[in-house]
Amino acid sequence: MSEMTTEILEQNLGKVVLVRLKGGKSLRGRLKGFDQHLNLVLDETEDTTNVENVKKLGLIIVRGDNVVLISPPPR
Amino acid sequence: MSEMTTEILEQNLGKVVLVRLKGGKSLRGRLKGFDQHLNLVLDETEDTTNVENVKKLGLIIVRGDNVVLISPPPR
Amino acid sequence: MSEMTTEILEQNLGKVVLVRLKGGKSLRGRLKGFDQHLNLVLDETEDTTNVENVKKLGLIIVRGDNVVLISPPPR
Amino acid sequence: MSEMTTEILEQNLGKVVLVRLKGGKSLRGRLKGFDQHLNLVLDETEDTTNVENVKKLGLIIVRGDNVVLISPPPR
Amino acid sequence: MSEMTTEILEQNLGKVVLVRLKGGKSLRGRLKGFDQHLNLVLDETEDTTNVENVKKLGLIIVRGDNVVLISPPPR
Amino acid sequence: MSEMTTEILEQNLGKVVLVRLKGGKSLRGRLKGFDQHLNLVLDETEDTTNVENVKKLGLIIVRGDNVVLISPPPR
Amino acid sequence: MSEMTTEILEQNLGKVVLVRLKGGKSLRGRLKGFDQHLNLVLDETEDTTNVENVKKLGLIIVRGDNVVLISPPPR
Repeated sequence: MSEMTTEILEQNLGKVVLVRLKGGKSLRGRLKGFDQHLNLVLDETEDTTNVENVKKLGLIIVRGDNVVLISPPPR
Repeated sequence: MSEMTTEILEQNLGKVVLVRLKGGKSLRGRLKGFDQHLNLVLDETEDTTNVENVKKLGLIIVRGDNVVLISPPPR
Repeated sequence: MSEMTTEILEQNLGKVVLVRLKGGKSLRGRLKGFDQHLNLVLDETEDTTNVENVKKLGLIIVRGDNVVLISPPPR
Repeated sequence: MSEMTTEILEQNLGKVVLVRLKGGKSLRGRLKGFDQHLNLVLDETEDTTNVENVKKLGLIIVRGDNVVLISPPPR
Repeated sequence: MSEMTTEILEQNLGKVVLVRLKGGKSLRGRLKGFDQHLNLVLDETEDTTNVENVKKLGLIIVRGDNVVLISPPPR
Repeated sequence: MSEMTTEILEQNLGKVVLVRLKGGKSLRGRLKGFDQHLNLVLDETEDTTNVENVKKLGLIIVRGDNVVLISPPPR
Repeated sequence: MSEMTTEILEQNLGKVVLVRLKGGKSLRGRLKGFDQHLNLVLDETEDTTNVENVKKLGLIIVRGDNVVLISPPPR
C-alpha cells in the first residue's frame, strides 16, 4: 500500500467513509481500523446498496479482497 | 490482519456473529475460532440466506476466502 | 489454518461430513484426509446438490479452493 | 497436498479417473502424471460433459486451478 | 511493475486520468498516488460509467486488483 | 509443473496443439514456447471457438492463467 | 515468463499489437513497455471490441492479470 493510502486512511480513522464492494454492494460506516490488505473495521455501518432500503449492520469486519474503492468524506 | 480485527474477533469468541459470504449466502453462528485468513469455526450455525427458510447447519468450518463481512452482535 | 480447524477435522476423520462448494454443489462423504489448504479426501461420497437425484461419487479428492464450508455430523 | 492425496493419485497412475472442472466440464481419462498444484496429465481422455455427445480429447494437460474434484475408479 | 509504468504514473501525478475497472465501471479523477499493485489514490473523482448520469465521488482509494486499464490525458 | 508436463510440452515444441481457455475459447496453434505457469507462445494460431467461423490469429502469447487444458496432436 | 515471451515482446516494442482481455474487450495499440506480469504500456490505443464503434484510448497502462492473449503484427 502506498504511504499516501495509509495516510488517507489514518486521517479518516473515526470518520464516516463510503465503501464499494465487488458485486455492487455499498456500505457507509465509521472507519475504526484497517490493514495493508484493506481489511476494514467499520462501526455504525449501513448497507446503502438499495437507497430506499438502507439496512443497519453496526460493527463489521470487511475482508479486503472484496473492496473496490473507499471514499472518505468531503473535506 | 490488523490488531483491531483480531481483537474484535477475540472479544466475540463464544458470541453469535453474522457472516456474509460471496455469492450472497448469509450465516448466523457462534464464533468458536478464526485465523488470519478469516477461516472461521462457527457453532449452532444457521443459513439465514432465505429468512423464510432458515436451515440449521450446526458446527461448520468456513474457508476464509468466501467471507465478505463479519458482524458481531450489537454491544 | 487455526488449531481449532485442524482439531475439528482430525476429530472427524472417518466420519461423514457435509461439504458445500463454490457454484452451489453439495457433497456428503466420509472424511479420510485433509491439508492446510482444505484439500479433502472423501470416501463413499455422494453429490447431494439435487436431493431428488443423489449421485454416488465414491472416493474423491476435492481441491481446497472450491470449498465454501465443511460441516461435521452433529455430536 | 496431504500425503494421502499424493498416495491416492500415485496408486491410480495408469488408471482411469473422473475429473470435474470449474464451469461444469467433466473429463474421463487415464492418469499419467500430476503435481502438487493438481496439474494433471491424462491420456485417452474423453470430454463427458454431455453424455450424449462424448468427445475424444486424447492426451491432455489440465491446469490444476481448474480442477474441482478427482475421482479414482471404484476399487 | 515496469519502470515505464512507474514513470508514466509519476509523470501524471496531479493530472486527470481515466480508469477502467473490472465489471465495467469507469472513473475519471486526479491521480494523487499509486503503488506497485496499482492501488490508486484519485481526487475529484467522477464515476463516468453512465455518461448521462455522472456521479461525484471526490477523494477515493481504488484497490488495484480491480483495475483493468489506466489512461493518462492526451499529451 | 510435473516433469511429465514439461516433457510432453517439450516433445510437442513445433507441433500443433489444441488449447482450451477459460470462458470457452478454443485455439489451435503451433507450440513455440512455454513456461512453468503455462504461459504459451503459439504460431499460426487459429481461434476455433466457432468452427464455422475460424479466425486467424498468427503468432500469439497466451497468459497461462487462462488455460484450462492443452492437447497435443495424436501420436 | 519464458525467454521466448520476453524476446517476442522485446522484438515488438514500438510495433502495433492486438491484446485480448478477460471479459471480451479487444485493444490495438503500439507496445511501449511490459513486465513479467504482462502489465503492458500501449500507445495510440484503440478499443476495437466493437468494430463498428472503435474508440480511441491513446496511451494506456493495462494491468497484466486482465490479459488473455497478445498478438504481434504478422511478420
